Amino acid sequence: MAVSIPADARLLALEDVATQLRVDSVRATTAAGSGHPTSCASAADLVAAIFFDVMRFDLQAPRDPACDRFVLSKGHAAPLLYAAWAAVGALDRKDLVQLRQIDSDLEGHPTPRLPFVDVATGSLGQGLGVGVGLAVGARMLGTDARVFVVLGDGEMAEGSVWEAAQMASHEKVENLVAIVDVNALGQSGPTMLGHDLKTYQRRLAAFGWRVNVIDGHDMKQVTAALRRATRGRGAPTAIVARTVKGKGLGDEVEGKEGWHGKPLPPDMAERVIASLESRLHRLPPPPIRRPRRRVGKTLLLPAPQPIAGKPPTGEIATRQAYGEALVRLGESDARVRALDGDVKNSTFAEKFKERFPDRFVEGWIAEQNMVSVAAGLGAQGLIPFVTSFACFLERAADQIRMAGISRANVKLCGSHAGISIGEDGPSQMALEDLSMFRAVPEAVVFYPSDGVATDAAVQLAAARKGIVYIRTTRGKTAGLYREDEAFAVGTLKTLRRSERDRLAIVAAGITLHEALAAYDEMAKQGTAVRVIDLFCVKPLDATALLEAARACDNRILTVEDHYPEGGLGDAVMEAVGTANVAVHRLAVREIPRSGPPKQLLERFGIGRGAILTKVREILGG
Amino acid sequence: MAVSIPADARLLALEDVATQLRVDSVRATTAAGSGHPTSCASAADLVAAIFFDVMRFDLQAPRDPACDRFVLSKGHAAPLLYAAWAAVGALDRKDLVQLRQIDSDLEGHPTPRLPFVDVATGSLGQGLGVGVGLAVGARMLGTDARVFVVLGDGEMAEGSVWEAAQMASHEKVENLVAIVDVNALGQSGPTMLGHDLKTYQRRLAAFGWRVNVIDGHDMKQVTAALRRATRGRGAPTAIVARTVKGKGLGDEVEGKEGWHGKPLPPDMAERVIASLESRLHRLPPPPIRRPRRRVGKTLLLPAPQPIAGKPPTGEIATRQAYGEALVRLGESDARVRALDGDVKNSTFAEKFKERFPDRFVEGWIAEQNMVSVAAGLGAQGLIPFVTSFACFLERAADQIRMAGISRANVKLCGSHAGISIGEDGPSQMALEDLSMFRAVPEAVVFYPSDGVATDAAVQLAAARKGIVYIRTTRGKTAGLYREDEAFAVGTLKTLRRSERDRLAIVAAGITLHEALAAYDEMAKQGTAVRVIDLFCVKPLDATALLEAARACDNRILTVEDHYPEGGLGDAVMEAVGTANVAVHRLAVREIPRSGPPKQLLERFGIGRGAILTKVREILGG
Repeated sequence: MAVSIPADARLLALEDVATQLRVDSVRATTAAGSGHPTSCASAADLVAAIFFDVMRFDLQAPRDPACDRFVLSKGHAAPLLYAAWAAVGALDRKDLVQLRQIDSDLEGHPTPRLPFVDVATGSLGQGLGVGVGLAVGARMLGTDARVFVVLGDGEMAEGSVWEAAQMASHEKVENLVAIVDVNALGQSGPTMLGHDLKTYQRRLAAFGWRVNVIDGHDMKQVTAALRRATRGRGAPTAIVARTVKGKGLGDEVEGKEGWHGKPLPPDMAERVIASLESRLHRLPPPPIRRPRRRVGKTLLLPAPQPIAGKPPTGEIATRQAYGEALVRLGESDARVRALDGDVKNSTFAEKFKERFPDRFVEGWIAEQNMVSVAAGLGAQGLIPFVTSFACFLERAADQIRMAGISRANVKLCGSHAGISIGEDGPSQMALEDLSMFRAVPEAVVFYPSDGVATDAAVQLAAARKGIVYIRTTRGKTAGLYREDEAFAVGTLKTLRRSERDRLAIVAAGITLHEALAAYDEMAKQGTAVRVIDLFCVKPLDATALLEAARACDNRILTVEDHYPEGGLGDAVMEAVGTANVAVHRLAVREIPRSGPPKQLLERFGIGRGAILTKVREILGG
Repeated sequence: MAVSIPADARLLALEDVATQLRVDSVRATTAAGSGHPTSCASAADLVAAIFFDVMRFDLQAPRDPACDRFVLSKGHAAPLLYAAWAAVGALDRKDLVQLRQIDSDLEGHPTPRLPFVDVATGSLGQGLGVGVGLAVGARMLGTDARVFVVLGDGEMAEGSVWEAAQMASHEKVENLVAIVDVNALGQSGPTMLGHDLKTYQRRLAAFGWRVNVIDGHDMKQVTAALRRATRGRGAPTAIVARTVKGKGLGDEVEGKEGWHGKPLPPDMAERVIASLESRLHRLPPPPIRRPRRRVGKTLLLPAPQPIAGKPPTGEIATRQAYGEALVRLGESDARVRALDGDVKNSTFAEKFKERFPDRFVEGWIAEQNMVSVAAGLGAQGLIPFVTSFACFLERAADQIRMAGISRANVKLCGSHAGISIGEDGPSQMALEDLSMFRAVPEAVVFYPSDGVATDAAVQLAAARKGIVYIRTTRGKTAGLYREDEAFAVGTLKTLRRSERDRLAIVAAGITLHEALAAYDEMAKQGTAVRVIDLFCVKPLDATALLEAARACDNRILTVEDHYPEGGLGDAVMEAVGTANVAVHRLAVREIPRSGPPKQLLERFGIGRGAILTKVREILGG
């Protein structure tokens, strides 16, 4: 078939871009003395075509919802990503050799320290879910932006990829393009499917995708497939590209095992770079494409309004208060979105769905993808709230870890925390969730104990940029606060106090209510203790805690519906760890079982009876 | 087509079994006042046929490798499982109404407290991976046992199901049968695919399975499909069964939304039970099938031998020492198996693969499934060791949580822990892994600091029943111990001490070596401190720690290549929390970045320089 000269020249120019990307990737990794040049080389033609033939963006505002987005799911090919952004002018090419240095933002795997990186990648299998979130977010914001995700073939083994694939087709995310770089070699050997492109095609098609199988090193096929892909018709498109690992880096390396994550030795790198440069047609790269919509004008959401109505002051389950609070927040702020993993009737996220059906995203029973999608929505300027049973959020532990590294603006609420859920048994009891979320460096962790506090937690979560976790309780608990009670990040509340207090009990959620019941019993017996509501578990108010300890004979008793490791007690201990405060602990210390909540609280040593016993043991008599 | 009378009678008898299972499920959940009768009803015909038409087992030894296994992945249908085991005589039917009571092992979701339950289920999407492990284990042990896994349709959205599906076909696990109960209703609404059985069929076929689509309430179709399935020919078989949620429970309930997880009210239950019983043909159930192989004779592995050779006493990376130790252990114990997630060249699990190719299982980049498969291997009496980068084991956090509830005999080793891996950056740095594993109630956590200690950790892990975690370091570190040094669960070692010590530094792994370097510097300056190797982070030797603190002016400094939450420092704090010991902490307190290991250790405050500064701050001068 005849190819017109300009088109031909364009292809040669794109080939030059790809060759330069290979040169830059080899140079940077050899300079760094580590990295993955062969993983860059297999995807160089694909990335060159994406950046210069189809992607529309604005270097001044790469995160504007009007801009197409690029996600490098195979994050270990970071040098290729940096080279591509240098090629379009977002970075100075000569800085690429700063790769992996401690004072450079060109990290070993991409992080959002760089303005054109939406989320950190490097834990494989997460990029497609983020891409779904970016694409759904763009659609929600009424832009025509597309999302391009480059995946490695090795990561296609991650279940999270298939969670994202099924959601993308179910949601008809036609502005999403997945490009699979099938170089057939993993880190430690050939991939499960090698170059069996048909099987990738069958699987993606079965998951509802339009699929193109191409030679990933034939620029004509690559550009044709990408252009077809960006004319999505009611379904996402996948380009399954047959590639060679180390393509263009010479016979010693091309398609050979044993070269994963290895830079070329300097002398070899020089030879390879010379050979690559000798193939340059010396044509200028095609001009980059601009977004169709005017940047800065696409986020057409009404400005946030003051929150109307009042929080519930009476008896209520905090999980229900969460659902009601989210609706109130949603009324005031159009950026708020909700996702839930097929438990919305239990987490009360269904209240938000009923009120704002277009702003709710069903995450199905696929928690990993739900969190990645939320990270993508957050990267479009929306404020996603993710709910499930707290124990099932742990399914997404690695996605949450990566969202933390990404400083993603994602809010998560885990309901049904702890043994107090009762009869459903241990598989449904989150006893590690505080630990998981506390270990996200900049995360805020709220553990509200009544309707007013839960309402405040939801509003504070929306106002705070970054990861915020809210832990809610299944059962109904009494109201504790007046509707105008003030809460903030770091807040703790002293609910019971006297001048004679000999011990400060620190708790939150169900155990706070048990502590209050124990307090009433102790008061009858004339034992004076302080009761503190640790509303904000992270960061916590160390000064106020220490003051309380000082006022209570330097004695603290923490009580938590959580395992002792990493939870509320550990948080309190570290806050007062060098101050000669005796911190006693009540927590769940064995594998729990099914049973009535009140019986379980006593059986596992965190109920009112257990608190009374422990206090007697601590204070004597 | 003519059906012979006996076959016909057999079908009617199986229908009676299914009807009785429904009756028992309704009665038990109504008695409990909670539970999922409608989820039991949809699968009752399938389970009746599995237990009475194809499954071969021995009630005296249900976990013998000669026995077929049954895994209820949709664990919320537990009452159906208990009713089935009662029907075959493993339980007394009248005890079924003890469901969910605190003193009954008939928990809300199945746990191995019951002898015929291999692993706890209830966190959806995990049963198939366990089934793959059970089936691979049976094959490794040379038995002809089959594994039947019943899945719900809602959980087919979990990526872990597809990880298991791909491995089952790749490994040609022909003794595995997955039965998907497609009742089209999830907890909070219709499932993503509803009754679109064709799509389930296409997806499973694309993942390499033989697939049968049937009416899950037609006993003739169900038994025919199961019999075909148990004649697997080089591939696993899936039976995709169209079912009705609440089947047989009356028009108010059958196929209706709003009945998930709800018991029938007592009066309604009585009516439903009466109507079900009126349909009984009053035929005796078919006799159960026995295993073909003699139970107790199938585990034909040589008895463990004393471990030969010596551990490495010189400089070595503990990750390499792990690989060498695993080979030595494998030589002595034929039960040992290894799995790795395509990083075997970095974790050194490849050494085991090279020596014992038939005892190594490639887990690919699918960590969730790898852990579930290991739980299945453990349930066959094997001793699986799972490796990946420590950060990627976090991908399987929920599978690890469930393995803990299952008291699964799984050993995990996480390599490349902490910021000391250097240039690859935060996505590859495990800084939460100690927290995750410490929060598994009965788990043991080893953090060896040299070759001898790593070798001991591997041997102790194999000898200990249950979850054991070993944390290894990327870089080479000096030898610390003589080859005959004795280690045990709970061991800590005092490496430096004097009568004048003013502070005890507690560390492990890379930070122990930094502490030793700092010690040398302090020794020159005449500052006397104690240095303790916390080889076993959980359980730890609180008595020895407290003695050390007492001998060191009640001062401890913990140093860890981990976030402060839930790690080594928290473990030490809780051990001495009420004893007036000042516990100072050095840990990674912000999101790290790429850079050279030594520079990162100082930048993030856990290197020798940071230790020296902190000690000066603590001791003054």
